[in-house]
Amino acid sequence: MKYIKDLKEGDRVFDIYLCKHKQSAVTKNGKPYENVILQDRTGTIDAKVWEPNNPGIDDYDTLDYIEVYGEVNNFQGALQVNVKRIRVCREDEYNPADYLPVSSKNIDTMYAELKGIIGTIQNPYLRQLLEAFFVKDETFVKAFCKSSAAKAVHHGFVGGLLEHTLSVTKLCDYYCSAYPILKRDLLLTAAMCHDIGKTKELSPFPENDYTDDGQLLGHIVMGSQMIAEKAAGIQGFPHGILAQVQHCILAHHGKYEFGSPKIPAIVEALALNYADDTDAKLETFKEILDNNSDNSGWLGYNRLFESNLKASKIDGVK
Amino acid sequence: MKYIKDLKEGDRVFDIYLCKHKQSAVTKNGKPYENVILQDRTGTIDAKVWEPNNPGIDDYDTLDYIEVYGEVNNFQGALQVNVKRIRVCREDEYNPADYLPVSSKNIDTMYAELKGIIGTIQNPYLRQLLEAFFVKDETFVKAFCKSSAAKAVHHGFVGGLLEHTLSVTKLCDYYCSAYPILKRDLLLTAAMCHDIGKTKELSPFPENDYTDDGQLLGHIVMGSQMIAEKAAGIQGFPHGILAQVQHCILAHHGKYEFGSPKIPAIVEALALNYADDTDAKLETFKEILDNNSDNSGWLGYNRLFESNLKASKIDGVK
Amino acid sequence: MKYIKDLKEGDRVFDIYLCKHKQSAVTKNGKPYENVILQDRTGTIDAKVWEPNNPGIDDYDTLDYIEVYGEVNNFQGALQVNVKRIRVCREDEYNPADYLPVSSKNIDTMYAELKGIIGTIQNPYLRQLLEAFFVKDETFVKAFCKSSAAKAVHHGFVGGLLEHTLSVTKLCDYYCSAYPILKRDLLLTAAMCHDIGKTKELSPFPENDYTDDGQLLGHIVMGSQMIAEKAAGIQGFPHGILAQVQHCILAHHGKYEFGSPKIPAIVEALALNYADDTDAKLETFKEILDNNSDNSGWLGYNRLFESNLKASKIDGVK
Amino acid sequence: MKYIKDLKEGDRVFDIYLCKHKQSAVTKNGKPYENVILQDRTGTIDAKVWEPNNPGIDDYDTLDYIEVYGEVNNFQGALQVNVKRIRVCREDEYNPADYLPVSSKNIDTMYAELKGIIGTIQNPYLRQLLEAFFVKDETFVKAFCKSSAAKAVHHGFVGGLLEHTLSVTKLCDYYCSAYPILKRDLLLTAAMCHDIGKTKELSPFPENDYTDDGQLLGHIVMGSQMIAEKAAGIQGFPHGILAQVQHCILAHHGKYEFGSPKIPAIVEALALNYADDTDAKLETFKEILDNNSDNSGWLGYNRLFESNLKASKIDGVK
Amino acid sequence: MKYIKDLKEGDRVFDIYLCKHKQSAVTKNGKPYENVILQDRTGTIDAKVWEPNNPGIDDYDTLDYIEVYGEVNNFQGALQVNVKRIRVCREDEYNPADYLPVSSKNIDTMYAELKGIIGTIQNPYLRQLLEAFFVKDETFVKAFCKSSAAKAVHHGFVGGLLEHTLSVTKLCDYYCSAYPILKRDLLLTAAMCHDIGKTKELSPFPENDYTDDGQLLGHIVMGSQMIAEKAAGIQGFPHGILAQVQHCILAHHGKYEFGSPKIPAIVEALALNYADDTDAKLETFKEILDNNSDNSGWLGYNRLFESNLKASKIDGVK
Amino acid sequence: MKYIKDLKEGDRVFDIYLCKHKQSAVTKNGKPYENVILQDRTGTIDAKVWEPNNPGIDDYDTLDYIEVYGEVNNFQGALQVNVKRIRVCREDEYNPADYLPVSSKNIDTMYAELKGIIGTIQNPYLRQLLEAFFVKDETFVKAFCKSSAAKAVHHGFVGGLLEHTLSVTKLCDYYCSAYPILKRDLLLTAAMCHDIGKTKELSPFPENDYTDDGQLLGHIVMGSQMIAEKAAGIQGFPHGILAQVQHCILAHHGKYEFGSPKIPAIVEALALNYADDTDAKLETFKEILDNNSDNSGWLGYNRLFESNLKASKIDGVK
Repeated sequence: MKYIKDLKEGDRVFDIYLCKHKQSAVTKNGKPYENVILQDRTGTIDAKVWEPNNPGIDDYDTLDYIEVYGEVNNFQGALQVNVKRIRVCREDEYNPADYLPVSSKNIDTMYAELKGIIGTIQNPYLRQLLEAFFVKDETFVKAFCKSSAAKAVHHGFVGGLLEHTLSVTKLCDYYCSAYPILKRDLLLTAAMCHDIGKTKELSPFPENDYTDDGQLLGHIVMGSQMIAEKAAGIQGFPHGILAQVQHCILAHHGKYEFGSPKIPAIVEALALNYADDTDAKLETFKEILDNNSDNSGWLGYNRLFESNLKASKIDGVK
Repeated sequence: MKYIKDLKEGDRVFDIYLCKHKQSAVTKNGKPYENVILQDRTGTIDAKVWEPNNPGIDDYDTLDYIEVYGEVNNFQGALQVNVKRIRVCREDEYNPADYLPVSSKNIDTMYAELKGIIGTIQNPYLRQLLEAFFVKDETFVKAFCKSSAAKAVHHGFVGGLLEHTLSVTKLCDYYCSAYPILKRDLLLTAAMCHDIGKTKELSPFPENDYTDDGQLLGHIVMGSQMIAEKAAGIQGFPHGILAQVQHCILAHHGKYEFGSPKIPAIVEALALNYADDTDAKLETFKEILDNNSDNSGWLGYNRLFESNLKASKIDGVK
Repeated sequence: MKYIKDLKEGDRVFDIYLCKHKQSAVTKNGKPYENVILQDRTGTIDAKVWEPNNPGIDDYDTLDYIEVYGEVNNFQGALQVNVKRIRVCREDEYNPADYLPVSSKNIDTMYAELKGIIGTIQNPYLRQLLEAFFVKDETFVKAFCKSSAAKAVHHGFVGGLLEHTLSVTKLCDYYCSAYPILKRDLLLTAAMCHDIGKTKELSPFPENDYTDDGQLLGHIVMGSQMIAEKAAGIQGFPHGILAQVQHCILAHHGKYEFGSPKIPAIVEALALNYADDTDAKLETFKEILDNNSDNSGWLGYNRLFESNLKASKIDGVK
Repeated sequence: MKYIKDLKEGDRVFDIYLCKHKQSAVTKNGKPYENVILQDRTGTIDAKVWEPNNPGIDDYDTLDYIEVYGEVNNFQGALQVNVKRIRVCREDEYNPADYLPVSSKNIDTMYAELKGIIGTIQNPYLRQLLEAFFVKDETFVKAFCKSSAAKAVHHGFVGGLLEHTLSVTKLCDYYCSAYPILKRDLLLTAAMCHDIGKTKELSPFPENDYTDDGQLLGHIVMGSQMIAEKAAGIQGFPHGILAQVQHCILAHHGKYEFGSPKIPAIVEALALNYADDTDAKLETFKEILDNNSDNSGWLGYNRLFESNLKASKIDGVK
Repeated sequence: MKYIKDLKEGDRVFDIYLCKHKQSAVTKNGKPYENVILQDRTGTIDAKVWEPNNPGIDDYDTLDYIEVYGEVNNFQGALQVNVKRIRVCREDEYNPADYLPVSSKNIDTMYAELKGIIGTIQNPYLRQLLEAFFVKDETFVKAFCKSSAAKAVHHGFVGGLLEHTLSVTKLCDYYCSAYPILKRDLLLTAAMCHDIGKTKELSPFPENDYTDDGQLLGHIVMGSQMIAEKAAGIQGFPHGILAQVQHCILAHHGKYEFGSPKIPAIVEALALNYADDTDAKLETFKEILDNNSDNSGWLGYNRLFESNLKASKIDGVK
Repeated sequence: MKYIKDLKEGDRVFDIYLCKHKQSAVTKNGKPYENVILQDRTGTIDAKVWEPNNPGIDDYDTLDYIEVYGEVNNFQGALQVNVKRIRVCREDEYNPADYLPVSSKNIDTMYAELKGIIGTIQNPYLRQLLEAFFVKDETFVKAFCKSSAAKAVHHGFVGGLLEHTLSVTKLCDYYCSAYPILKRDLLLTAAMCHDIGKTKELSPFPENDYTDDGQLLGHIVMGSQMIAEKAAGIQGFPHGILAQVQHCILAHHGKYEFGSPKIPAIVEALALNYADDTDAKLETFKEILDNNSDNSGWLGYNRLFESNLKASKIDGVK
């Protein structure tokens, strides 16, 4: 397969791509045509279907995987595929992972690591709660492992939610070793569950957009409610422990203005808030630098960080 | 019964009061005594038990209703009861309503009015939801009608939650007549349910203080979850309607910084936010003026209103 | 008359329109031409006058009503009128109401309703003050009834100021019935007068833009001063009442950061602030939904409401 | 006369003082007595009238000038006058200036300087406006020259308004020499008038407290209205100039959150805002240092300046 | 030695304490006496010297170590030492560590651990910089190891600066293992140096108060300047590396409003900001819980955390 | 020389310009060309080099001074130079001052005036400090006199730093005459030095952009450090005076959120903050008006001033 990032003017294209976006349009002369964005894991490219009613053009739609036959042109300095034929593909013809941004880490490995940590939780109720989600609920596990942690900002790729969750959990584990005041079972349970509501807030890839419930209720409240529902299925789950886990979820954004309806009142909620924030910001900074890896100077003002950013450098510096 | 607000220096006291607060102390000479605050619906008064080990002093505690025998003294300009005998009373000896701040409106009348409004809701699911709370769930109804709407600020009295809820609901009903864009069934359902979480956030009178769940989860999230649980018991309750009702609850404080995890996204949530805020602020202003009814001038700077307040006056003004 | 919203490519145009905007320009070859925006109550359309020096093209200007002869073309997907002839019309040839956005409610009816409310004011001074504006000052009445309530945001149409004022006044009247603490004469007088300064802050339609005085002084201060001047003409108007009415005007934006030089200090000023804000926000939301009536989903992030907005829906929802 | 700051334990007092405050009270035994605060220009002292019904005690009140006969005691480390006789004095028996904080500068000299500056204004309308206030309106001149510039903060003494106004005007005059862009006639007129509303916002000394109008309308809006009224009496005063002067008054606090209903839109309004702010802050700092003249170190955190303050020192510093 | 926390009413005292505070006063009868606060590592107690001119009372002062002979009384419920004799002690009579709050961790061990980390720094310039401070500059090492990290908030004890620095450094080291993007040499150098300015901002124990330089310049700017001065003594220290280390120091408070003159622009500055904030907040929370170890409920609203705080609990919870 | 502001369509160009910017591009057909911006002191103009590989086109770069031969065309309403030949010039062929924005005031005169003020400083240490910078350090003097005070906002021209510094210093001198509390030697020294760090924060003209050090450390901290270094070279410079001068530099932005790591604690720091702010804002307003000198109306909303701005006018106003 020829990846989009490798296409050059004049290339002939004959491969399967994800149709990220399709929009019908009309030329000045009133002729219909279609604007299309093709995607694979290496990027996206614009395409035009000038004869959408041709028999060679299947009845395709946004988010279909389509086999495209066409030619790469240069239009005003940007590459563009002039599409001659389109065929909608069957599920067995392609591997979605080739068309989506994915975690650079292995999903199975990360999931195994997460289960390993669950095995270290001593409190029987908290351990059952974690297993109810991460071991016994296969639908949840599948959604959780494929979900992104965000629509746009950090960890916005397949496996991103798992990667972020694992990273936060391990950072919390370090905290527990450094600050004995922290109750490890409570903190690690909250860490593993803190973003589970995102499996409902964002639709699955390739769409990866806010759902109605996501917009109306948000992952924080949905996550808290998911925990209450799972705990209701565990014999004798102490209400007081449940309330503390829910509190950690509700408070993990740390401040009202970031959408948390509660401010951390117990030290584990505070620690989770710091771990989540630290991981999100360092990962975001990493992604900015990755996207500017050829740039050795200042990257321009960044609104999130409220600063002009720069790649640090100490080797060979005068 | 002699009300606390009518006590004068030299009076002899022999009546039942609520023991709002009791604290043991020791005189400079090492003699134990007890500081007590007595309460009835007209106010509170300090009291001293100088001989707590006397046989005439029952084994009483904070929040007991106690029969007090003693004398009113003046200590440094403030009245104080010198207590000689204390007897703890049985439930049938007193009427709690005589000892607590209560709504100036009749609770039964207000409750009937609320039920009357429920009878006008057309959407069968929303009507069932309201009836599940306000008609069929007797424990909830009892708690709801006795609860205050707040610990300290506005509507902080028995029946306050009902009075506030009814007032907000009727204001929303006026909105519906003035702004046809509003969906009355949705808005009025949300209005009636918007503060139901307060029955769990605050403990019942006479304590009326934040519960653990109230501190950890808050009435907004608990109210949203209560609705989800009740709706789960109604056959075929449409998820999309449930999400909109929950959204109205979650967003009714209007802004993140006021503890709402969601900002109003639909017009009914916005209207509820305005009705709740309008009623709370006008009631608060009314209570300030009531507490200063003898004051015809400026009342001093008020932090909530960010202004020096004054009773308006147009009759007989030059 | 053929409305602008109904024009199609290829149509021949021969009708009177408001010239919303006219700008001279030069083609690359140095030939002069004119860019024009035509408006009627249904919308606007771009137009080009390629031969501005033709004898068939009158000497017209921005805000003239002009009879246009031409042809509708499609340029880069947008419609455009190629204008061949222009004639400036006399005042009796057109009805301005056909060319401007107007209230969907009848202006005469609303004005009668406002006068009806004035008739219920008991305080003789306040009633005289209202009559001095809304009954006896014909120039003011004419300006008030035609004015918009805003340049851009809500109620930005002919009659908008009257519609907004009446709506706020009626909402205040409802408050008076629900909160007996409010002094109806004072509150309703302030409600009716709260935005009278807008008749000076905005120039009349069709321009509807900020005046110099509007920019330098603002409608709040000008409104307060207008009231002082009218009251000076009423024998024995009590200074203390005047100051309270002026205070309500000055404080009706509620906070310094919204341009009020005073924060509500009396309960009527507070109520007016809530009524004004409630009406403005609900009307704005309504106008957003009206402008997106074909959209059944999320409308996108709205800066004023700090939220992604959506039309609510409960009928037929699953 | 023996000044309050010089009184010592054991002194016998027999002099005239201002009765700053009088409050009736009752001893534990039910005996009435009176708490009094006596004031002269050097400070205040507490006093007690233990036999208020004695024939030697006149029927005096707060803000009376009273002749006091008594003895200075030490009560819990603070001095206190035990008052035996009180006589209310006639206006010709005392000089109020001996009992009030006064400007350290001569009021007549400052007033003459202000009139001198008025003589340099070229624009005939602005000059007439200034003369209408500062020359022809004797009542205004008298009030203006005696008024303080503030209740509590800076320039809170007799003549303070005049001193502040003159200082701001001269600073603006310096600006005009340094920044030719500034229109001197406009800026200096606005500078001289910027706080005239304070003559109505604060009651005269010795009370010097906010008036009802001050609380409800504020000196900014009242000052703007005073200018409009005076200008109405000047034949042909150009409306456009009036609006610019009023704008400078309205905008001189610089920001909405400081109570200005308009933000500076012309450069003279901006300059006035800076001059007013600079003078107020430097004078406030001076008064803080004056009040701590014996303190050579850090003065503690000051909320207005958001900093711990210190007297600078360069002579003899190591 | 009898510790202050173990004193009881009636005890006879004859031990050495730190005189935390001494203030002369006068009784109502004009007799001079002295208020004193005595301190040891377990707490403080009030004391009175009723006969300060007695020959048995040495000429002592605040911050002297004094041998006190006296008796413990109960005054209005609080213990108080009635002091009969005072003798100022020589340096060899006491161990300051017995009179000051100290880190619960061993200072030598922590210092050795810090030096161990310095040994792992690869970049020769950064390593030399660290050694110049933490190995070769004995005066600095001594001050650094005894200094507190704050006057009042967290780590306010002898060794607090070392403990905080080590904790932040180790947290940064964990970050480096989890986020390969981070340059360990740069980050750990900045972490070890981030608060070195505190050795100049705070005076040494037992005073532990802000110095003049601390108030005027602050530890952030002083720390940055100390680094520049040390680097100037290292042959060939690359300016570009120095600027990055200084930037990390300047930006380690993360935001302007927390006193950083620069916002993190490189990822190491961001990581340091998170590590510093995380350690400070978790330690502060720990100290709050330590101070309330007997309290099993809510601890009350805490301004720093903007929340009512509570000790979490999962063992034995229902 | 023909200035850019005088060029017209059809003109032939043959003159030396500063190449402000150069960017290589490719036409749709794949032909390389170059986009260039030419600058002289009167403005900038776009230019195209359609045949960059022609022998007549030298190997030039951004910020070179180049002799251009070409023709002025009109492209879509904007002028554009079609460049035929380019030659890179030697330093002696042009005067940079012809190509850069420069102060309208004479640099030598301003520098002499600054030195004159230094001559009035009495304190020997402060005078030596000023002379060490402004008299003896020729490299510094040269950089200081040519530097701009800002990249974009006010005083963004050659000599701007000197002009701003002198203006601030003179305003401070006026303050000293009006407010005797100010220590003139300290305030004027701080005023003259307050922005010296800008010589390192911004690269020299024609680039005039932030340096790496400017981004990482900022002119406030660098200026403070420059003063410390210079003072270290002056025998016996009192540390306490140095700290106060540094404090004035560090605090001259007045608030944390404007990048000052310290808030003014001494009155001279406060005065400097006002002088700097006043001069910056009045100069900025002046530059806005200069750039809109042909505009007699409202200039549009300005974010810095948070207001719609207007040129004031009193002559000939009705």
